[in-house]
Amino acid sequence: MIYLDNAATTYPKPEEVYVALDKANRNAFNTGRGSYKCARAASEIKESVRNKILKLNNLKNGKVIYTNSATVSLNELIFGIDLKENDYVYISPFEHNSIIRPLEELRKRIKINIEIIPFDKETWNPDFDKINDMFAIHHPSAIFLSQISNVTGYILPYENIFKLSEKYNSINILDASQGYGIVHINNYENINYIVFAGHKSLYASFGIAGYIKLKNDKLKQNIFGGTGSDTMNPNMPNTVPEGYEAGSPNIVSICGLNASIDWLNSTDIYKHEKELTDYLIEKIKDIKKVKLFIPNNYENIFGIVSIGIKDYSSDDVGSILDDEYNICVRTGYHCAPLIHDFIESLWYNGTVRISLNYFNTKDDIDLLIKALKSL
Amino acid sequence: MIYLDNAATTYPKPEEVYVALDKANRNAFNTGRGSYKCARAASEIKESVRNKILKLNNLKNGKVIYTNSATVSLNELIFGIDLKENDYVYISPFEHNSIIRPLEELRKRIKINIEIIPFDKETWNPDFDKINDMFAIHHPSAIFLSQISNVTGYILPYENIFKLSEKYNSINILDASQGYGIVHINNYENINYIVFAGHKSLYASFGIAGYIKLKNDKLKQNIFGGTGSDTMNPNMPNTVPEGYEAGSPNIVSICGLNASIDWLNSTDIYKHEKELTDYLIEKIKDIKKVKLFIPNNYENIFGIVSIGIKDYSSDDVGSILDDEYNICVRTGYHCAPLIHDFIESLWYNGTVRISLNYFNTKDDIDLLIKALKSL
Repeated sequence: MIYLDNAATTYPKPEEVYVALDKANRNAFNTGRGSYKCARAASEIKESVRNKILKLNNLKNGKVIYTNSATVSLNELIFGIDLKENDYVYISPFEHNSIIRPLEELRKRIKINIEIIPFDKETWNPDFDKINDMFAIHHPSAIFLSQISNVTGYILPYENIFKLSEKYNSINILDASQGYGIVHINNYENINYIVFAGHKSLYASFGIAGYIKLKNDKLKQNIFGGTGSDTMNPNMPNTVPEGYEAGSPNIVSICGLNASIDWLNSTDIYKHEKELTDYLIEKIKDIKKVKLFIPNNYENIFGIVSIGIKDYSSDDVGSILDDEYNICVRTGYHCAPLIHDFIESLWYNGTVRISLNYFNTKDDIDLLIKALKSL
Repeated sequence: MIYLDNAATTYPKPEEVYVALDKANRNAFNTGRGSYKCARAASEIKESVRNKILKLNNLKNGKVIYTNSATVSLNELIFGIDLKENDYVYISPFEHNSIIRPLEELRKRIKINIEIIPFDKETWNPDFDKINDMFAIHHPSAIFLSQISNVTGYILPYENIFKLSEKYNSINILDASQGYGIVHINNYENINYIVFAGHKSLYASFGIAGYIKLKNDKLKQNIFGGTGSDTMNPNMPNTVPEGYEAGSPNIVSICGLNASIDWLNSTDIYKHEKELTDYLIEKIKDIKKVKLFIPNNYENIFGIVSIGIKDYSSDDVGSILDDEYNICVRTGYHCAPLIHDFIESLWYNGTVRISLNYFNTKDDIDLLIKALKSL
């Protein structure tokens, strides 16, 4: 089987992660201020992994809040940053329903305005002049941008967009689910929160994700419950991260993340995956029937490539690749509704998404190319 | 090591669960309508485990909604059942902060009233006459009850309390985190939702929990995001469970739950654990220094026993048991603030909680008794 659906979840994980998960399952104590050593040891791992997450991107002074999924992280942020009626929120056309749907809910509840940041259809560059004008007319209260598009693999120039919001006190959120730990976030001066997903670019398991709070803005709490501390108080504690982590943390998945970060630190994933991405694009662009959904310069495409095949619905391509070639890709709209109009993939019922990871090889791509040529 | 903190998380899990988790981790594909067989197979397991959860308690027609933790389940319910300003919500003094804290938040947001159901301090029986009067004066909009108290192991007569609410259209929620799958829920005619926690009585791992929707009442959505379906719609689907499960499900933990339910079905856990509980109480009640927090008839105490030791803070007892006897218990307030006034354990800084599971033996209890006698 050739697995090319790594944007859904990376597979396989490093052997070290499987070993750590099994070991943790077989020693899974609940954390918290238990009165015994094992519970305290579990709490210590939970804290030390926070630092490892920060160090992975050389972040200074951030605070890591664990959640169970990137979707939960984004919900906590969208409902937590205290948007008000008539506020203007900006998103890119590359965003996922984990951003669009909670914002739409908020629009219905309190009438916020959701604006789409303009990008050029050829170069995929943002139209900075127009964005400047938009921000000047309707000051941004919050901006949500993906680090890497989950459909197209495009690394957005988020830092340049966030920079334009400097004078407006905007709360800026970077959804780094597809890239945290692999594609470095260089400029984070204008970022308030970074969202990460353990089971994607971090090569850990399901059950652990979170967000990094980089600034001192106020964040309303969204999930309430036991924190193992201050029990007699019916209110959540006010502290970060304690006040934002109700319920038993998934200590097993945290142990898996602990192992995966060690592995990430010892492996040059970016280089290998970028080479594979470029190799894939080079090979695929010569196939006549293929429509490649990339900008005219694909320097900033990383790990994910979406295509359409002339005269085929994307779902049919997926089925053929699976049935006849044992190749796993994901097809359709990938929970990102706006991008299909932008890249004009509606005609194909969405895209055939090929997403790579460190364990893929050029041989995998050669087999995919052979399969696509046979269509 | 003698592990007596099973109310925090059951440990160990059955070997079958560890094997299933490792296998699932090594084959962890994301679910959803992927265009390949493995993703569809993952989706099928996700659906079949829902039926197994229902069958475990012979529930007819319920719908299982997965969440990542019982705390999240309770938050979704508390913020989802559409309580209005001035509504009356009833809870027992046995409830956990995963109920009390979200209700308190709602009280601050929209001014609901939170009433405590009266229980007799000797018998721990509810005062049904008084409850009847309370319900008549202030009709219940919702009632939250634990199946089993996480501090005292008391199996609440929830069915009789819920029955009193029949004429008021109350939404009744049973928090079965400590007992689902082991202690049968016999009367569920007046229950709207049952909450379960995979990593506790179900002997599965962290990362999987949920609630069972037994009736047709409307439930507002709380977490918004990708559902792998209807992508172009900025609203969540309206269907159950799809509309309530945004984001990637934890398919690995679901596979662990699949194995643990098979094990539960083949093992008489209730009988063994009830025998152990009674044995523990019989042995412990003769120790002079021990204050046992049980009602005068302990027929309905299951799996969990809380005690205080004269002249000791409960934390100190925990430390001694850990350091000198390698016995793990949890001490303090156990995230349940109201019960300590009811059982009068504040004097001891909370309780020393001894919580059992299927893998404990009478020898474990004998060693604990020996340790307690040495204090």
